[in-house]
Amino acid sequence: MSYGIHPEKYRGLSAAEFFYRNREIAGFSNPTRALYQTIRELLENSLDATELYGILPNIKVILKLDEREQNKVTIRVEDNGIGIPKEEIPFVFGRVFYGSKYTLRQTRGVFGLGIKMAVLYAQITTGRPIYIRSSTPLSKEIYEYEIQIDISKNIPIIVSERVYRKSVKWHGTIVELTIEGNWPNAKKRVEEYIKRTALITPYAEIYFKAPDLELYFKRTTTKLPELPKEGKPHPYGVDIELLKGLIAKYSNNNLTIKEFLLNNFDGVGEVTVLNFLKWAGINPDMPLSKFTFSDIEELSRKMREYDGWRRPKPITLSPLGEELLVKGVKRILNPEFVQAVVRKPSSYAGHPFIVEVALAYGGNVPVVEKPLLYRFANKIPLLYDEGVDVSRKVVDSIDWSYYKVKFPAPLAVVVHICSTKIPFKGVGKEAIADVPEVEKEIEFAIKEAARKLRAYISKMERMFEIIRKRIEIGKYIPEVSRSLAEILMKDQKVFEYRLKEMLERIVTKREKGEKNVKEYAK
Amino acid sequence: MSYGIHPEKYRGLSAAEFFYRNREIAGFSNPTRALYQTIRELLENSLDATELYGILPNIKVILKLDEREQNKVTIRVEDNGIGIPKEEIPFVFGRVFYGSKYTLRQTRGVFGLGIKMAVLYAQITTGRPIYIRSSTPLSKEIYEYEIQIDISKNIPIIVSERVYRKSVKWHGTIVELTIEGNWPNAKKRVEEYIKRTALITPYAEIYFKAPDLELYFKRTTTKLPELPKEGKPHPYGVDIELLKGLIAKYSNNNLTIKEFLLNNFDGVGEVTVLNFLKWAGINPDMPLSKFTFSDIEELSRKMREYDGWRRPKPITLSPLGEELLVKGVKRILNPEFVQAVVRKPSSYAGHPFIVEVALAYGGNVPVVEKPLLYRFANKIPLLYDEGVDVSRKVVDSIDWSYYKVKFPAPLAVVVHICSTKIPFKGVGKEAIADVPEVEKEIEFAIKEAARKLRAYISKMERMFEIIRKRIEIGKYIPEVSRSLAEILMKDQKVFEYRLKEMLERIVTKREKGEKNVKEYAK
Repeated sequence: MSYGIHPEKYRGLSAAEFFYRNREIAGFSNPTRALYQTIRELLENSLDATELYGILPNIKVILKLDEREQNKVTIRVEDNGIGIPKEEIPFVFGRVFYGSKYTLRQTRGVFGLGIKMAVLYAQITTGRPIYIRSSTPLSKEIYEYEIQIDISKNIPIIVSERVYRKSVKWHGTIVELTIEGNWPNAKKRVEEYIKRTALITPYAEIYFKAPDLELYFKRTTTKLPELPKEGKPHPYGVDIELLKGLIAKYSNNNLTIKEFLLNNFDGVGEVTVLNFLKWAGINPDMPLSKFTFSDIEELSRKMREYDGWRRPKPITLSPLGEELLVKGVKRILNPEFVQAVVRKPSSYAGHPFIVEVALAYGGNVPVVEKPLLYRFANKIPLLYDEGVDVSRKVVDSIDWSYYKVKFPAPLAVVVHICSTKIPFKGVGKEAIADVPEVEKEIEFAIKEAARKLRAYISKMERMFEIIRKRIEIGKYIPEVSRSLAEILMKDQKVFEYRLKEMLERIVTKREKGEKNVKEYAK
Repeated sequence: MSYGIHPEKYRGLSAAEFFYRNREIAGFSNPTRALYQTIRELLENSLDATELYGILPNIKVILKLDEREQNKVTIRVEDNGIGIPKEEIPFVFGRVFYGSKYTLRQTRGVFGLGIKMAVLYAQITTGRPIYIRSSTPLSKEIYEYEIQIDISKNIPIIVSERVYRKSVKWHGTIVELTIEGNWPNAKKRVEEYIKRTALITPYAEIYFKAPDLELYFKRTTTKLPELPKEGKPHPYGVDIELLKGLIAKYSNNNLTIKEFLLNNFDGVGEVTVLNFLKWAGINPDMPLSKFTFSDIEELSRKMREYDGWRRPKPITLSPLGEELLVKGVKRILNPEFVQAVVRKPSSYAGHPFIVEVALAYGGNVPVVEKPLLYRFANKIPLLYDEGVDVSRKVVDSIDWSYYKVKFPAPLAVVVHICSTKIPFKGVGKEAIADVPEVEKEIEFAIKEAARKLRAYISKMERMFEIIRKRIEIGKYIPEVSRSLAEILMKDQKVFEYRLKEMLERIVTKREKGEKNVKEYAK
């Protein structure tokens, strides 16, 4: 037997080393994808650093190619955001799994990973550190850093550090990175990505410049979406670990189970808690300290099984809303018909979410064999891996002929999912997993909008029918007039004039009726 | 201005907490998927623990549902593998990013993550620890553990621990977990997964038992594939960090650059190294200690750009080979035609890989609109996310009509990629990213096999043609015989007999010729 010849060697990896070895997981699989991903991560951080704090975003992205080596690409992103506190900068850029996004509210960033991946990628392809210049609104200083990551320890290496007194009133962050990238190949995707970002953020000013591409999106509204607030977990779908963690906080306390539930969960009021405890067969006055491990397990199970919880409050979320969504869609697609639907908040596994949908039909929407899909998650456009996304699944499962859409047709479906936790399929943040609750909400939203679309298409069909009839009837008028003129021995011209006038009157009246339907549909 | 109202809260996460929060990334998105993923991770660990050490795998998977709660599923997997050293068990099961798979050779496991995710999932859904019983071949003891994970610290919690003296000669590992799972929904996938595992491991004995499903695959060969050996990185696609790390080992040493390259890289011999250094304009005798950081950056770039490197040695890899691949395909698909192609080793970003492909046509292969695809990576079947996998992309890009396949057709394509590092798109290990080097190898392999398929189909067409002609000509024999009989005034029967005999002779001769082609194609 040959065992023992290759004894297993066991060891641990740092988080940085794990992602260094497995960078394609985070979307850094090749120079094309890495360039796209880097621009994305930087732009999304800038949007979070502005709109989450009530600041109208002004963002500039500058891309330069090295003159000698065209595959060495420098990306610089500037924003007018909240800035990063000086002492946090080394960790925010130089430590995997460190960040400010680990709270219960909707943000673009979630993993505390993207920017570090970009730093790692720069480090292993061009060897250059990331450059950061930042200042917070209240700081009197502007600070500059150059940072790399010690991969085996997952700690930052400060390559250089400078501090200036702030002479002009400025706050925000400037970041610059040089990576190996394939700009010619990435260009189309980056352009599409920026356009879609502009669709979902009509209040943001975005300027992008590369040697052969310049994009400028002026804001079309100064209204920001409602800001998300930090929230509590929802009782539906809570897990044992979460429950144990919350209970541990009260270990030296006389808190009852009723008070515990009231204080720690979203959507749990006096009535709801009593109804639940009655259903679960738990005495509301039982002290928390009496709960054994198996009681906690039982409680967790019961909380997940109870179907009387209220929907979570949407305070943690920041959907666009109908008005901004329609504005965004009109800006980019300029359709003949647009209908937005914003669903009520729902939740999965304790995470609240809201689905917003818009259907755009006709106008500049290209004619396609199956609906064109624009996917967004927490205002991030998703471009890759559409084939495995839950939205594609739903859109493809709908019988569009029922809604009078006959393909090929000029139909685009915009799906925006907001959540404190988007169920992404990967850390590359491209496809959303088919969580049943999310799937259902998307389906309901699309179908609701599709009913309006059907009304619109029906009306257009009737309009066409009227026009067709006018032409058809119009053809017979001279004939009829001649016959009438002969029978009544009058001038044919008079009958022709009268009949045409009558036809126009009827047609106009019917068209008016249809137009009222149109207004309603819009 | 509202800044400062929500000051950012910065903090770090442990790796366990990261994956606890983002479990869908590793395939644990819902009870159906989690059950499938758990079975997979356990079965794959067992296969690695046997065949990597030259042991013919005997694996038993037992699935039980809780009598009271049908969504509480217990999974037990037993193997006859190498076992896990006692002191390593707590970390192997209780610490994310810890394991034995971080070496340069082909294994099924790569992330050191799957089993910990299963442990975490059990912990948060049923609160039950994982049970382990193991012994190594040389150990005199059998040890049992129950383990959970301290999520916030990413360290194991030992719930219980027992040691027995070994009275019978046994080595291997038994693992048992209880998770929340949806067996009715997962069943079909699990069955398919186990079947495909049996396809790719014809030398493994696999027994699976659930309340309503029993599968037993006896081995059809006792030949194991060549064992993978640990290797060195390949110079093509080496990155700066890797180079810095290797050079750091020789900091107090007079090693020259030539010696350094010879000692540390795969496929670099005396001739290659001198050719490369000449091309790069580097003096072979330059001491390594003289290399500045920018020299290292330059060297890394040059190493990636040089196209004179030899292909990596495949010692780290363990492909199935033509014989075993054909055996596996025949066992599961029983096709009319099968052709396997094993490509020579290639590499991407310093990682060697081998692509093996089999085309199966006719027989039990179902008739489909586009080729049925069986994807494998390091002998792992990939079932989900086919739509975004590089193999699907290649298969769909091929003009099959050129190879005489007219869809719908009974065609299956088996693609097996072996590598020390499979470029997975996610830690769920389902889809392979489209790395250009891998894409090309898959294309070449499929096309090579497809040419053989074309030859086979052409031959079958000619065979049909012969049969058709025989029937056609056969019809005229009585007519011709009668005419001949009349003209020559002989018995018609004689002519009929002679003509039929002649026809059979010609047809048999042609068929024989075609059969020789068939032998060649197989």
